[in-house]
Amino acid sequence: MEKIEAQHPMLDGFSFELEAGSQRGPRAATLTTPRGKIETPAFMPVGTQGTVKGVTPDQLRSIGTQVVLSNTYHLAVRPGADTVRELGGLHQMMGWQGPILTDSGGFQVFSLGHRNRIEEQGVHFRNHIDGDALLLTPESVLDLQARIGSTIAMVLDVCPPAGVDRDVAASALARTERWAMRAIEHRHRLELFEPMALFGILQGGVEEDLRREGAQRLRELPFDGYAIGGVSVGENRDAMLATISDGAQHLPIDRPRYLMGVGGLEEFIVAIEAGIDMFDCVIPTRNARNATLFLSDGSSLNIRNSVHRRDREPLEQGCDCPACLQFSRGTLHHLYLRKEMLGYTLGSLHNLRVFHRFLERARQATLEGSWEQFRGAFLSRFHSRSG
Amino acid sequence: MEKIEAQHPMLDGFSFELEAGSQRGPRAATLTTPRGKIETPAFMPVGTQGTVKGVTPDQLRSIGTQVVLSNTYHLAVRPGADTVRELGGLHQMMGWQGPILTDSGGFQVFSLGHRNRIEEQGVHFRNHIDGDALLLTPESVLDLQARIGSTIAMVLDVCPPAGVDRDVAASALARTERWAMRAIEHRHRLELFEPMALFGILQGGVEEDLRREGAQRLRELPFDGYAIGGVSVGENRDAMLATISDGAQHLPIDRPRYLMGVGGLEEFIVAIEAGIDMFDCVIPTRNARNATLFLSDGSSLNIRNSVHRRDREPLEQGCDCPACLQFSRGTLHHLYLRKEMLGYTLGSLHNLRVFHRFLERARQATLEGSWEQFRGAFLSRFHSRSG
Repeated sequence: MEKIEAQHPMLDGFSFELEAGSQRGPRAATLTTPRGKIETPAFMPVGTQGTVKGVTPDQLRSIGTQVVLSNTYHLAVRPGADTVRELGGLHQMMGWQGPILTDSGGFQVFSLGHRNRIEEQGVHFRNHIDGDALLLTPESVLDLQARIGSTIAMVLDVCPPAGVDRDVAASALARTERWAMRAIEHRHRLELFEPMALFGILQGGVEEDLRREGAQRLRELPFDGYAIGGVSVGENRDAMLATISDGAQHLPIDRPRYLMGVGGLEEFIVAIEAGIDMFDCVIPTRNARNATLFLSDGSSLNIRNSVHRRDREPLEQGCDCPACLQFSRGTLHHLYLRKEMLGYTLGSLHNLRVFHRFLERARQATLEGSWEQFRGAFLSRFHSRSG
Repeated sequence: MEKIEAQHPMLDGFSFELEAGSQRGPRAATLTTPRGKIETPAFMPVGTQGTVKGVTPDQLRSIGTQVVLSNTYHLAVRPGADTVRELGGLHQMMGWQGPILTDSGGFQVFSLGHRNRIEEQGVHFRNHIDGDALLLTPESVLDLQARIGSTIAMVLDVCPPAGVDRDVAASALARTERWAMRAIEHRHRLELFEPMALFGILQGGVEEDLRREGAQRLRELPFDGYAIGGVSVGENRDAMLATISDGAQHLPIDRPRYLMGVGGLEEFIVAIEAGIDMFDCVIPTRNARNATLFLSDGSSLNIRNSVHRRDREPLEQGCDCPACLQFSRGTLHHLYLRKEMLGYTLGSLHNLRVFHRFLERARQATLEGSWEQFRGAFLSRFHSRSG
């Protein structure tokens, strides 16, 4: 298997050490940042408004969170990047001193698509709160991320919906590439408050050859890491999984690979096999607020269901999360029915811990050379449950 | 000054050691329970539905909470006392292993007064959720509290609204006394899952002589502690403070005295001077959810006010609560405007910590013989602010 190595050094203060694995297949690595180390594969809880909903930074640390994701667009609208800066930057504001990865705002701009107009310069947009006009450009999204004090910034990409024609996908890919080059050029003009790595994003819809060519050109650019975007936007599941695999294999072996917006234990298995190192998803916290709680076999339960009313057992036997160590299913059921905040907090901590623990074990298996057993054991539980 | 000593021992496993103070005036004591010690004066956060809203048991411990209050009535309606029992009892259900004081349900029954009918046997009531008929008697409220596993139970009392005629107050007092005797008799028939102390309640409206006579008769009954009820139900402030003082001075020196439902730094000063040891109030957590945050000088602020938008300072300089140690006023302002749960959690922790710390310092001053300075310093700050 061909090893593709990055042609440029990473930003000072950042490094990526591959401890197990190679160009393809499961990897275990450590991404070092000036804000701390991230042992991969790693999951990033999402803190949209400057907080992972219902969870304190201390609680995040206690369940094994190493890095959080925050949404530049939402923070830029409210309270505004200048206010974040005046409050000491995003780390100070969030009370989270570990690494923070910020998205570019591109996903929100595209997901709120009826309000945008895409031009070569950037995306004209009316924000979802007061309709104020906003122009996001490859340069301005970096300015915003630098201003709020991101540890790892993402470039602005074009994120077409699923099912578009090949022409549209090719055109989006080409524009994403031009925007990536503008980001690289603009990087040296940034006013940085703290060191900020920059990740490029691979687009290209579900077309295998577009993905490959895109990856080949993207990896020539001196990014500190590479993300796969435009997945989980409505395409079918098999297409999504193939897309991940097609993309990752052409990315440099010695840089972190981040699969944007995908979370789920079964998806982790496929993505790790494709060589992905980092994940984010709102599902663990959003589902927790909707009473959907995850189990380690990939299944879930609705804690509002009356079968849990008098159940003294924890959500999951052997789980080391704060909810399972101290509370029964019956208590959680009661808290959810009463709409008590504590229920959402405990549910979020549990769901996040299930994700973190799964990736910790995947990492351990990879380091020990027992990935196949880990994968097999999970899939056999998963399918016996499903089937 | 006459010292009035209780004529009966406390329940096995419970003791009350007075470390400073006497029959009247500020006291420092330790109330020992099988679930742990309570250093007084002490504030009890209120966990109505089996949780102090938005706060985990670990967080409660971290801010100095020694004992929590839970509402028998609410738990009896939902999830039901039997369910609480099946979930291992209230301590197990709440994840709180320290002492829990439970009210009798009387206050809810009277505060939801249009649905009740008071007879000698007890209070007929339709619950506020589904209108199911419920009869609370002096015996049944003890059964309920024993069933859920309370550490300190309260008797059922008659709690008339403020401003009633002397006749009505006297009649309520007489019935409260008859009910207290029935509680004492019933106590020995209880099926206990864990040791449960029992506190009597002094009523009598704002009539000084009724209070005194009530206290004199109540203290003859072998309760493990004595509460002053029926204050803060709409009477004016001076009447309330006089009421506390009139009641407490006639209670036994060697038993804990609990002022029900009163919280606030200035009220603490007056009540401690009257010889009160224990307090509870929903104000710190309820106000926190409404964005009203307390400062140690007795003032408060509305964190939603735009003056806080870019304020990097903590809520209060020198405060040792989790909110002040890690977050700025600007962050809290942002979290409250976004209605983020984390804001309510942090605000609740701060408000509770202000109350706890105030009483810790009052205790320390009492132990050191510097109460007058403590009181004077607080009141001078308080009045210079108000005036």
